[in-house]
Amino acid sequence: MSMTARLIGVGVGPGDPELMTLKAIRALRDADVVAHFAKAGNSSHARAIAADHMRPDAIELPLLYPVTTEIPKDAPAYCNKIAAFYDDSAAVVAAHLDARRSVAVICEGDPLFYGSYMHLHVRLAARYRTEVIAGVTGMSGCWSAVGSPIAQGDDVLIVLPGTLAEDELVRRLSDADAAVVMKLGRNLPKVRRALERSGRLERAMYVERGTMADARFMRLADKPDDRAPYFAVVLVAGWESRP
Amino acid sequence: MSMTARLIGVGVGPGDPELMTLKAIRALRDADVVAHFAKAGNSSHARAIAADHMRPDAIELPLLYPVTTEIPKDAPAYCNKIAAFYDDSAAVVAAHLDARRSVAVICEGDPLFYGSYMHLHVRLAARYRTEVIAGVTGMSGCWSAVGSPIAQGDDVLIVLPGTLAEDELVRRLSDADAAVVMKLGRNLPKVRRALERSGRLERAMYVERGTMADARFMRLADKPDDRAPYFAVVLVAGWESRP
Repeated sequence: MSMTARLIGVGVGPGDPELMTLKAIRALRDADVVAHFAKAGNSSHARAIAADHMRPDAIELPLLYPVTTEIPKDAPAYCNKIAAFYDDSAAVVAAHLDARRSVAVICEGDPLFYGSYMHLHVRLAARYRTEVIAGVTGMSGCWSAVGSPIAQGDDVLIVLPGTLAEDELVRRLSDADAAVVMKLGRNLPKVRRALERSGRLERAMYVERGTMADARFMRLADKPDDRAPYFAVVLVAGWESRP
Repeated sequence: MSMTARLIGVGVGPGDPELMTLKAIRALRDADVVAHFAKAGNSSHARAIAADHMRPDAIELPLLYPVTTEIPKDAPAYCNKIAAFYDDSAAVVAAHLDARRSVAVICEGDPLFYGSYMHLHVRLAARYRTEVIAGVTGMSGCWSAVGSPIAQGDDVLIVLPGTLAEDELVRRLSDADAAVVMKLGRNLPKVRRALERSGRLERAMYVERGTMADARFMRLADKPDDRAPYFAVVLVAGWESRP
């Protein structure tokens, strides 16, 4: 037991355990409590990535979302349930911190880049000693797997959630040198249409499980169907003047 | 000697050697040749980050820019010199690959995110076995150091070079939820005006040497001068609806 209350957001990278940093591994070896978010009934991806580096005597704290995509995100029922869940999770973590335990919250990718850890961070960072350990993002893992130089020189890069309206996607894709579209899943047909309308479909690469052994990637124009997991991404590389 | 010709772009992260990945460290331990870019007369930042993990018998290959900021970037003299430099560098690396040596090109941050490695990659990847090892980007290192949740949910994040014209910066800053402005240096006064005009100055954080022991950060509105190194960044965090 470390006797030092500390909250640590630990980025464990995009999937390949080899893409964990030394700093993340050392934080896991020192942590009294290891917390991870997952959908109820599922196991945590972050935990699977970090498993080999967790202390056998660490206290595990699974934080299980009461809802994910069953209720529309703008419905009051969703907002209330999810806010209560983050409040409760922060209270459980705070109880460990009050008992002078260090708590590592492991996160896929980078903790402060579209991650659930942020909900704990904004509730607790003002009250407890807090550290955030940056991680390799999922998008870096994907463009590296494809070997696709994403942005160079004076390129403007935009990161877009596939949840945006089609016209909004068209407008933003037309106005950037390079783009990453995340949160595909059921949004892929709309994203494909937006890429076509903005003249970017020819450059678009579809990437699934980018850094895993079973990674799949192809030109989106060559993908025969519109099935995609939620965490797949589309990359539009910039650097159009490349030699 | 590995007897396997292989080009490896190795991201060594934003500065703190602890933010190197296991995969980067293993690649360095296996590489016959370690190449790094630097300005002539300067030492390579990537080399400083990776120094503890290089094999004592590795062949070092410094690739020294003939020009950096002495000549304007759009001047033909700059373009010719720099293109010849990348061609020559690729030829030297290719000679090592032809001799069946593995060549690790170490890069600050992530190799395919605004990095010099990309110039070798586009010249050599079609001819030689090539691998890219993703790294923690400088921007992730910076927002983690500040503890600033950069983007959440349906936020749109934009990455802007500070070299853009002021009106262009204003237009793009006004239209994004979250922003990272890179390449500050002499561009800081212009970037500050653009943030003010787009109503984003109050949220803007200035970060210098984000993951180093001598990191400095402050609200840009509180920074009394416009002196900034080229690699400092400005962060405008999204997630305005946060609790």
